[in-house]
Amino acid sequence: MDRSRPSTAPEWQVSQWFNTDRPLALADFAGRVIALHAFQMLCPGCVQHGLPQAQRIARLFDASRVAVIGLHTVFEHHAAMTPEALAAFIHEYRLAFPIGIDAPAVAGPIPQTMASYAMQGTPTLILIDRWGRLRKQSLGVEDDMRVGADIAFLLAEQEHPDDS
Amino acid sequence: MDRSRPSTAPEWQVSQWFNTDRPLALADFAGRVIALHAFQMLCPGCVQHGLPQAQRIARLFDASRVAVIGLHTVFEHHAAMTPEALAAFIHEYRLAFPIGIDAPAVAGPIPQTMASYAMQGTPTLILIDRWGRLRKQSLGVEDDMRVGADIAFLLAEQEHPDDS
Amino acid sequence: MDRSRPSTAPEWQVSQWFNTDRPLALADFAGRVIALHAFQMLCPGCVQHGLPQAQRIARLFDASRVAVIGLHTVFEHHAAMTPEALAAFIHEYRLAFPIGIDAPAVAGPIPQTMASYAMQGTPTLILIDRWGRLRKQSLGVEDDMRVGADIAFLLAEQEHPDDS
Amino acid sequence: MDRSRPSTAPEWQVSQWFNTDRPLALADFAGRVIALHAFQMLCPGCVQHGLPQAQRIARLFDASRVAVIGLHTVFEHHAAMTPEALAAFIHEYRLAFPIGIDAPAVAGPIPQTMASYAMQGTPTLILIDRWGRLRKQSLGVEDDMRVGADIAFLLAEQEHPDDS
Repeated sequence: MDRSRPSTAPEWQVSQWFNTDRPLALADFAGRVIALHAFQMLCPGCVQHGLPQAQRIARLFDASRVAVIGLHTVFEHHAAMTPEALAAFIHEYRLAFPIGIDAPAVAGPIPQTMASYAMQGTPTLILIDRWGRLRKQSLGVEDDMRVGADIAFLLAEQEHPDDS
Repeated sequence: MDRSRPSTAPEWQVSQWFNTDRPLALADFAGRVIALHAFQMLCPGCVQHGLPQAQRIARLFDASRVAVIGLHTVFEHHAAMTPEALAAFIHEYRLAFPIGIDAPAVAGPIPQTMASYAMQGTPTLILIDRWGRLRKQSLGVEDDMRVGADIAFLLAEQEHPDDS
Repeated sequence: MDRSRPSTAPEWQVSQWFNTDRPLALADFAGRVIALHAFQMLCPGCVQHGLPQAQRIARLFDASRVAVIGLHTVFEHHAAMTPEALAAFIHEYRLAFPIGIDAPAVAGPIPQTMASYAMQGTPTLILIDRWGRLRKQSLGVEDDMRVGADIAFLLAEQEHPDDS
Repeated sequence: MDRSRPSTAPEWQVSQWFNTDRPLALADFAGRVIALHAFQMLCPGCVQHGLPQAQRIARLFDASRVAVIGLHTVFEHHAAMTPEALAAFIHEYRLAFPIGIDAPAVAGPIPQTMASYAMQGTPTLILIDRWGRLRKQSLGVEDDMRVGADIAFLLAEQEHPDDS
């Protein structure tokens, strides 16, 4: 995790939300740790490892302390991974946490949030601390033990890192 | 497996083929055992278990003796599992065996081959013997050891079952 | 599998049997295929892969057609892998098929049956056909699908291989 | 984890140590979190799940902050799980962290440390905080994510729990 001077996480640009009755923004989660899982529904590593791990995070930690958010960052096969296809995918895989569709770029294949976070692919796990600051961004899948520890370290922080 | 009087397997009705340069029919495989894997690209059991097993069948048995064929039997979420989406799926999951799209019915959600075989869902594994006869049809996922044995029993048959 | 002129499997030299009320010999299994699993109780590959596979063989195939036999071929750590230790191991791992202790050599660490089969280590899977002939001997762990197919091929043989 | 008033962990009673050149005591680890894994070498749940998890703890966390200690708490099959057998087991399973043999009781099958901690079986995972206090004791195997989080929470504690 980033223990240097962390910066505020970029706001999410989402064109459509699932599993929530209203749009979500970073500010809605102040005081909570956010585990943001960026995925594509046709990415094998996301389906086999990343999304099951996101579900385990949601099961283990209390929702009042850790928010799990999915972000569908389609950067390839755009015609296949439509909102309608994602809706079917969410239903079939029984994903219960809020999932946003990363807003397409005005030009080019990389969607807006993916670009603002400089993500290099999917799956990417992002941890945001209780003050809205980007603390970890990791391409690929990490061991559950490490992810559990990383989240716990953020939960245990008692004060704004800059205050110490 | 069906060791009673087996019947001829129904012909496949396919609207589009992938991984083959020409349409395939049962008669093309006379003398070979066929492992037909019916799946949907958004069916978790197919993605996690059925398709990997089909790939293992294709790896283990010589292609001159056992043909592995995929059949995309879309009976739900039709708008999500389009041919274009399937093409992306096949690419991402590195599926190398021939895959046909089961032809949509004139009316109703069940595609034609799925109906003629009376399949009850996906994944379904179907084994067809060297004389084109339906010998096994199984919904869900069976152990690799059983599937390996079932295919070997069909390979070992020396003569047309009716001749014995 | 060995499809050349196979030779008769060497008789087993066993100093003590578990899970059977009388000593077993090859001749007891005429007409049946034998899956002989040679293992050591402190061999990680045996505990994690080989023995669970032997249990799956015993579950899948009818005992009247396929006999699963364990052989404890201790060739290292002799002081640790005693008959008393093996008894506890069999109990804890719920092994239900007959298991023999390969008889120690008069001189040297390699027990007698291990030597007569020229086994190179553990786990080793040995398949013996219905006429008592050695047809497969494989060090390490093979995929379940291959093992299922190998056993089925032996079950499907209708006559003594030399008669054909 | 125990967030109430935790008590000091009982001292270990060990008759023989492996993977360390001198006997170890709780006081040697002041300032470090201890993950104590109590196991028996013939306990399937320990071999398949508990010990691999202990190895993952040792790999993930810096040894200067988290000490992984094995404790061989033999309470059954005493004649099978001798020190000599354990030495072979440690060698074969490539266990690299310090492992102590829980000292046999003067009377009865339960060894001394197992009794003083009131452990109910194996595997048992015990977490001891940086002030030598017992914070978690769990029979069976827990998910890696939870274990990673539990250890991280203990690492993050800035002061003696009683001081707060």
